[in-house]
Amino acid sequence: MRIDIITLLPELIKSPFEASILKRGIEKGIVEVHMHDLRHYGLNKYNQVDDYQYGGGAGMVMMIEPIDRLIQDLKAERDYDEVIYMTPDGETLNQGIANQLSLKENLIILCGHYKGVDQRVRDLFVTKEISIGDYVLSGGELGAAVLCDAVIRLIPGVISDETSALTDSHQDGLLAPPVYTRPAEYKGLKVPEILLSGHAGRIEEWREEQAFERTKKRRPDMLKD
Amino acid sequence: MRIDIITLLPELIKSPFEASILKRGIEKGIVEVHMHDLRHYGLNKYNQVDDYQYGGGAGMVMMIEPIDRLIQDLKAERDYDEVIYMTPDGETLNQGIANQLSLKENLIILCGHYKGVDQRVRDLFVTKEISIGDYVLSGGELGAAVLCDAVIRLIPGVISDETSALTDSHQDGLLAPPVYTRPAEYKGLKVPEILLSGHAGRIEEWREEQAFERTKKRRPDMLKD
Repeated sequence: MRIDIITLLPELIKSPFEASILKRGIEKGIVEVHMHDLRHYGLNKYNQVDDYQYGGGAGMVMMIEPIDRLIQDLKAERDYDEVIYMTPDGETLNQGIANQLSLKENLIILCGHYKGVDQRVRDLFVTKEISIGDYVLSGGELGAAVLCDAVIRLIPGVISDETSALTDSHQDGLLAPPVYTRPAEYKGLKVPEILLSGHAGRIEEWREEQAFERTKKRRPDMLKD
Repeated sequence: MRIDIITLLPELIKSPFEASILKRGIEKGIVEVHMHDLRHYGLNKYNQVDDYQYGGGAGMVMMIEPIDRLIQDLKAERDYDEVIYMTPDGETLNQGIANQLSLKENLIILCGHYKGVDQRVRDLFVTKEISIGDYVLSGGELGAAVLCDAVIRLIPGVISDETSALTDSHQDGLLAPPVYTRPAEYKGLKVPEILLSGHAGRIEEWREEQAFERTKKRRPDMLKD
């Protein structure tokens, strides 16, 4: 998989791609991530990339021309499955979307900043608009890093222990059950006895029950679908 | 505001705090963010911080003792309003939670990794569990960076143009209307005439209408509350 990220602040999300799962996926050659500084496509001698919004109001808007030229340059090199725009009014990211995107070959992710991009960018070039949640961030960069992490860890070979990813919260439609590790007692607090029993079948049953109870209590909406 | 982040991978989220809004809030002295490497509190000569889970199964669990000792050290220095654990089964972050947290003085954010922390950490120390959305990430670090960005940008003085934050998507319960900037025509695509009209009142009306229409079309759930 190849991901091209278009951003005004490539330095903002440098470190997430140099650590942990993302780094591992890149080092194993399973995924390539390229950052493109939109400013290099800026207009005039100031490398202008944004301007005041028509109709007045606070906040700058990212101009269409630099984005158009950058995307055309990328598309001249290869075909893209999706041009994704990170925006708080996009479709809310969930595990199903992450699963789907993990099967793609080439993705462009466009990060908005300030008031976002000129609407014509969305009308013309963007094929998918994604929000990572119902809150406002100062730009699309962290959202892009979150999306990449959620997607890349699903590609076979990135996580060494694949059964681990399959039992995560949200992957099977339930929250994960509680987990415990050594010591069996800490300051008077004990691990549930069942987990020390060695009865694999009963432990499995207990976990399913706990996962269901936790989901019912915390996220009844997840059980309705 | 002071935020203490407990993590096994402090390097993963180094760059978001050195750029953009987060950097500005820190440089202006409005917020302090401290990263604490949990490994420094690890056990034995291997600085062990995790172990296999009781009852078997894939994935490691973060042990209670290193986390307990680190949190006690922090609490010895000052009182904390919340000890927040980033986890996919926590309460889903939204703008209301971000608004509330932006009024706090001292926060601890604990980032999970692998299968998460021993349940007793959650029972004993954690006062708030937050998820940034219904998807699985390889750790709590990106979630912590997202939470910090969402919260810090709301603190007065961090964003220079405060009216800009108030008209963002989700802040007033509606998605933001489309925005446009120069040029008025690009490859045949024109900016809506109303925005060029100079009639402030009618522009305001058009924007409200567009915001409502977009919300109705994309997120009817937001209009039900």
